[in-house]
Parts: sequence; C-alpha cells; structure tokens
Amino acid sequence: MLTLYDFMGSGNGYKVRLLLAQLATPYKLVECDILKGETRTPEFLAKNPNGRIPALQLDDGTYLAESDAILWYLAEGTQFAPADRLARAQTLQWMFFEQYSHEPFIATVRFWRHFFDRLTPLQELELPGRMEKGYAALGVMEKHLGRHEYFVGERYGLADIALYGYTHVAAEGSFDLDPYPHVCAWLARVAAQPGHVTIDHKN
Amino acid sequence: MLTLYDFMGSGNGYKVRLLLAQLATPYKLVECDILKGETRTPEFLAKNPNGRIPALQLDDGTYLAESDAILWYLAEGTQFAPADRLARAQTLQWMFFEQYSHEPFIATVRFWRHFFDRLTPLQELELPGRMEKGYAALGVMEKHLGRHEYFVGERYGLADIALYGYTHVAAEGSFDLDPYPHVCAWLARVAAQPGHVTIDHKN
Repeated sequence: MLTLYDFMGSGNGYKVRLLLAQLATPYKLVECDILKGETRTPEFLAKNPNGRIPALQLDDGTYLAESDAILWYLAEGTQFAPADRLARAQTLQWMFFEQYSHEPFIATVRFWRHFFDRLTPLQELELPGRMEKGYAALGVMEKHLGRHEYFVGERYGLADIALYGYTHVAAEGSFDLDPYPHVCAWLARVAAQPGHVTIDHKN
Repeated sequence: MLTLYDFMGSGNGYKVRLLLAQLATPYKLVECDILKGETRTPEFLAKNPNGRIPALQLDDGTYLAESDAILWYLAEGTQFAPADRLARAQTLQWMFFEQYSHEPFIATVRFWRHFFDRLTPLQELELPGRMEKGYAALGVMEKHLGRHEYFVGERYGLADIALYGYTHVAAEGSFDLDPYPHVCAWLARVAAQPGHVTIDHKN
C-alpha cells in the first residue's frame, strides 16, 4: 500500500490527498509536523533529502517527492491526466507556474500568517513584494479563467488540483479574492467535483 | 517552424536552446531583453500572460511557457525523455526541485550579481538566506550525484538539462562549487554530451 508522509496544514500535501481521494486509492497516512522539524530529522532526510513533505513511498519502497511530480505519477492513465502531448505540456506549464509564481508568494504568506503569531522583521520587509507577486499570480489565473472553465482542455484535471491547493486558502494569508470573480467561480467548480475532500481530510 | 522568445543570459531559456540543439530542431530565435522590460509589454503578455521568457510558439500558433514544460513538450518520444512511469515522475521531481528549491536562490542571486552593479537594500537583507538555500540545493544534488552519474535512470536526460541551466553559472552569483566535487564532475559530463552548446549559443 502507498504511504504518504504529509502535514495536514500543507496545501502541497493536500493536492496529493485530494487526488488520492478522487482516485479512491487507499494509502497509509504518516503525519509529520513541519513546525516541530520532523521533516529535517536524519530519518526523514533518508526518505527525501530535500526535507519536505509530501513524500510518497511506493510499493517497491521508492520514495517520490515534490507534490506535482507525485500528482503526475498517480494520475497517469486516469481521467485526471491530460490525454495528448500539447495538453500534457500545458498542464505542466500551469503546475510549474504554481510552484514558481504562485506558491512562494501565496502559500508562503499564508504559512507566515496562519501558523505563527507574528512575522519576523525580514518577513515584514518581504511582505509587500510577496503580496504583490501573489496578486499578480491571481491576475494571471483570473485572465485565463475568464475564457475557460478549467485550466487545460476545458475539463477538471491535474492543473486544477495543483492550483486549487493554495488558492482556496489564500484568505488565510489575508489575500482578498473578491476582485477575482472568475477565480472564485472556478474554486466553486473544483469543490463540486465528485469525490472532493477538504484540506483537513484524512483517508 | 518553432519560434523561441528568449533572453540570452537566462539559464531557463538556455535549457530550451540546449535541448533544441541536441535534438537538431530548427527554430527562429526572437530575443527579448528582460532588463528593458520587453517581456512586460502588451504584445509579449499576449504571448505569455505571466510575462516571462522562454516562450515557445508552436506551428499552430499556440504559445507554451515555463522552461520545464517546454522541455517536456520537445523531448516527448526522444532519448532525452524518460521511458517509464517512475522515471517520468523522478524526472519531474528533479525539475520541480530545480524550480522551487534551486532557481529562486542560485539563479536569483546570480541575476542580481551578474546583471546589476549593486544590490538593493532589500536584496542585501535577503542575500544570506538565499545563499544558504542555494547551497542547500547544491548539497541535495551532491548527495545524489555521489551515487549516480546522472539524475534519473543513469543516463543524461531532461532532469540533467533542467539542473545544468543555472548550476553551471552559479559562480556568476558567487557560489563556490569547490565543496561539491560530484556536482562539478557531473557538470563536466553534461558539457561533454553530443551536441552540447554553451549558454551564449544562437541557433
């Protein structure tokens, strides 16, 4: 059986838990508290040398890291994976957009604000730039979703799961989604998908 | 014919130019000077709403963005793409590692130091943390390359191209690679691949 090492508050981990639920794939959940350094122990670093959850142990013992690589692995051959070459590349385009232009801003600010009582002085200095870049990412999404129901191929799939993970909790980082009505409508469409589970869902 | 919108100093763009050279795929190069804001014009934003190079225009007019998504598109069905499901996921694992845990530190510091005369006050404050995280990424690579010749499947492929892009110019950000002998040996192996071109190569 698959074993998922995860932290329940993580949007990156939630992406994987959401897809596993929608695939109805059984797995064992091992919670690792990143706030207590449990992903930086020698034992965990032997699983993922980069010291991050989620990490998925496959049946043969192999560990996979990086949420979007895990999503790709799990989705291959299912309805959630893109069916043709261009759609695969477009899906990866949005997944890399999420990890490079969205997560470091929206997820990081949400992490600072949601899990800690106050920001450090350096975080205070970085905050305006991070907020601005987070809103820029929401703007790119809003523009795309003004013309499309989902991110790729007009159907729910991996790119939507990847972007939903932290967008739906952006308010926990004090991002205001009201100026992004197409993003809000898409969030509702994703939440209405069969088999949808919330971020606090445990299998 | 493919059209690549690129900035010659970009390691992200170079990844694509390197693979295109090794595939012997002809393309038209359109240079965009990111230092002059040429990727933030209305014309460019119509190609990539995220305002970044590289962007690849396909024969049907479609634009693809995100260097690693472009690499994936170009490599499908070639010797540079992984042949099985696990290797595909491991390749993506390293590509997402590169964009999340390597590029924002090594490439960003190199960008600050290589293209500008001095750092801004905020960049000066962020520098120690960015250097530390860049070295952490090199440490993860060093550990892996101590046991493997290449990143996935013991053969040169997409993960190597993705990680080579900015690792080989890390010194331009004042990163010292001497403590990473396995990384240095791997850089030499990549540079010795058939069809290798340097970052200033134009087709």
